[in-house]
Amino acid sequence: MHIYDQKESRKLLERAKKVIPGSPLCPGGGMYGHYSVSVPARGNPIYFSKADGSRFWDVDGNEYIDYMCAYGPMILGYNHGTVDKAARQQYRKGNTVSLASPVMVELAEQLVDMVSIADWAFFAKNGADPTNLAVMVARAATGRKKILMFDGGYHGSSPWMQDPGSGGTIEEDTANVLKATWNDFEQIRKIVGENDGQIAGLISTPYHHPVVFDNEMPAPGFWKNIQDLCNRKGIVLILDDVRAGFRADLAGSNEYFGFKPDLACFGKALANGYPISALVGTDALRDAVSNVFFTGTQFFNAAPMAAALATLRELKRINAPKIMLERGWKVMGGIVDIAKGYGYDLRVSGLPSMPFLRITNQDPPVFSEGIAGLHSGLHSDWISECVQRGAYFLDYHNHFISTAHTDEDTQRTWDIADDAFKAVKKNYGDRF
Amino acid sequence: MHIYDQKESRKLLERAKKVIPGSPLCPGGGMYGHYSVSVPARGNPIYFSKADGSRFWDVDGNEYIDYMCAYGPMILGYNHGTVDKAARQQYRKGNTVSLASPVMVELAEQLVDMVSIADWAFFAKNGADPTNLAVMVARAATGRKKILMFDGGYHGSSPWMQDPGSGGTIEEDTANVLKATWNDFEQIRKIVGENDGQIAGLISTPYHHPVVFDNEMPAPGFWKNIQDLCNRKGIVLILDDVRAGFRADLAGSNEYFGFKPDLACFGKALANGYPISALVGTDALRDAVSNVFFTGTQFFNAAPMAAALATLRELKRINAPKIMLERGWKVMGGIVDIAKGYGYDLRVSGLPSMPFLRITNQDPPVFSEGIAGLHSGLHSDWISECVQRGAYFLDYHNHFISTAHTDEDTQRTWDIADDAFKAVKKNYGDRF
Repeated sequence: MHIYDQKESRKLLERAKKVIPGSPLCPGGGMYGHYSVSVPARGNPIYFSKADGSRFWDVDGNEYIDYMCAYGPMILGYNHGTVDKAARQQYRKGNTVSLASPVMVELAEQLVDMVSIADWAFFAKNGADPTNLAVMVARAATGRKKILMFDGGYHGSSPWMQDPGSGGTIEEDTANVLKATWNDFEQIRKIVGENDGQIAGLISTPYHHPVVFDNEMPAPGFWKNIQDLCNRKGIVLILDDVRAGFRADLAGSNEYFGFKPDLACFGKALANGYPISALVGTDALRDAVSNVFFTGTQFFNAAPMAAALATLRELKRINAPKIMLERGWKVMGGIVDIAKGYGYDLRVSGLPSMPFLRITNQDPPVFSEGIAGLHSGLHSDWISECVQRGAYFLDYHNHFISTAHTDEDTQRTWDIADDAFKAVKKNYGDRF
Repeated sequence: MHIYDQKESRKLLERAKKVIPGSPLCPGGGMYGHYSVSVPARGNPIYFSKADGSRFWDVDGNEYIDYMCAYGPMILGYNHGTVDKAARQQYRKGNTVSLASPVMVELAEQLVDMVSIADWAFFAKNGADPTNLAVMVARAATGRKKILMFDGGYHGSSPWMQDPGSGGTIEEDTANVLKATWNDFEQIRKIVGENDGQIAGLISTPYHHPVVFDNEMPAPGFWKNIQDLCNRKGIVLILDDVRAGFRADLAGSNEYFGFKPDLACFGKALANGYPISALVGTDALRDAVSNVFFTGTQFFNAAPMAAALATLRELKRINAPKIMLERGWKVMGGIVDIAKGYGYDLRVSGLPSMPFLRITNQDPPVFSEGIAGLHSGLHSDWISECVQRGAYFLDYHNHFISTAHTDEDTQRTWDIADDAFKAVKKNYGDRF
């Protein structure tokens, strides 16, 4: 199989290093934020030239089947006709104007109609906007300070969400944030007891999808127990559905897992790549959210709202979660079988439409030792071999399936995975 | 003159009230954030149907000369051919993809070339993203906690920025924020002395543009004194140029006022309405920003970057600040003269390209008493009469001039202002 090179990407990165800073995960500079994490990975492309359907092309002309979907936003495929047309039509009327657009009302009605717990909707831009707002709403509603979250959970890069001691944060940022272990309800009950009457909200993703580690589904009864406890103790239950939203159940991923939060945060896939996020909530919290002042210059952009409306209607029309869950099962199941043929145990965790991959033969994986270990070891090497053959996976993050991924993509991905296993087998031999 | 009505806007607002929350400034619901503040104002339209050049049309078909420019983003006119073409071309290639676009590097190079203090650029979405990041960078660089800002300054709606006690905030949010009075350097020197070695950064707009109150230019020597003090005390000087950026000087509004900050925040007008913001800074802070993890799903959208690049080039080509400053002088100067003819003293403050208006005859204006007083009294009534005749002003906020405002707009605005003064004179008579 042809092995890609990334000469143009690397050349452009050298230019970028002069004018764009790095991140703790990309100390060389040239890229920041979540897009910086894969930059040091061997054979990873850095800049795209075009994208279409389930695929993108890098600036070296290499073609990739995209299993990252822009880290979630792409759900119907790049350059989706219906969504792009809706956005273009709204752009012609106006996008950022001194008044709001009527499409804002239509979109709020659509979300209230579609999302089980939604009695109202508040629109913003990034995923961190609704999670930040949700925390404020929980505090406004309860008059309490503390927020309970799960260790390894990610709710945006705001200071309150980061690990104490992270660059640029101060102790006051996290002074009121409590952390529990996923699926350990007894521990949660204990924390709530020790902080009786002080916890404003519990924020969680619908299942545990940390980076680097295997993703975990909720244990039987876990969500029901949490919901009951929150109700009993007056704790606002906040669902962070920014990443998983619309890939499990269009009514909210809570419906897939059988519980009802008080607030739900959406973003990423909401408009198939147009920038918009949303906080939705129950009637009981309408006064609380109305007592919080929260805004942004770009919160009222009309074109992303039109794109979101078109995206939600299309997701519903085709019953998109079913397509993506089935596609994920099929493609990942096939790779697991191929892995077995080489003596590798590929563990797939999380939602089938958002699969996290890990070859367990080398356990713990090298990158469990932290940043220094990222992008090395058996699993990372296999991922790297896949990427260099045109299947865009990442070694540390869950993946995303879209409705645009085809049977042809699946077959091609299996061929690539096979050739990549062959390459690492040649290198590692019987060591793992 | 024909007096507009807003029947369709009000009908749509009733629908919105069911599915969209309100804000502390719009307790009736249906609109949140800064777009909610003008909703309770008499005769104010709420939803647009289209926009073009310097004008927008509301859903009732009324046409307005827009002096709010979407609260800043619109700087070259709505539906600007060059900018929209650049965005459309990038949309066809890809917007939100699993990799960054080469245009990100080009845009960073453009900002580094154009903005006097910029050695690097970091892109985000809303104005609050760079102000939040700037605070983190100042803390990372200095190992200190405290942030000094000016009373009445606005740097986004994040909890640290809000008044203590605001809905959803807790005391820890503002525990490390110190406030000084604009133009009172002696007070600043005193605060810095009392907090020696504890202040990480001083954040300020280039001149004082609070809401509700007259805007204030820096006193002679004020910025030089502040810059010297910050340099001497190792305090990171952060320019919040989100609102004023590109309406005073394309190299940064600090150049207009003659000082050099360490960091500068841009947003709003950066891409003529496409959502993007940026933090730029000096080489000395490159390591600090690279040690902060800060990101967002939508930070890498390529189409707004292409739009920003086209906007900056066009602003430079036409020397846009000069056009807007002159246009602002002319149109506002004319209104001041018309006001005199009716015995009214209209005070215009701030940059001519961002004029704040206040009729001083009723002093203090009723709305200085707080939210309850907003949108009533002589000044608000005159604004309302202007709006209902097709000049879109707001009573509590500075205005914005674009390069798309024409001589015809100016003449029409004068005619409207005149008729509006006539209307309030009829109502108030000699009371003021």
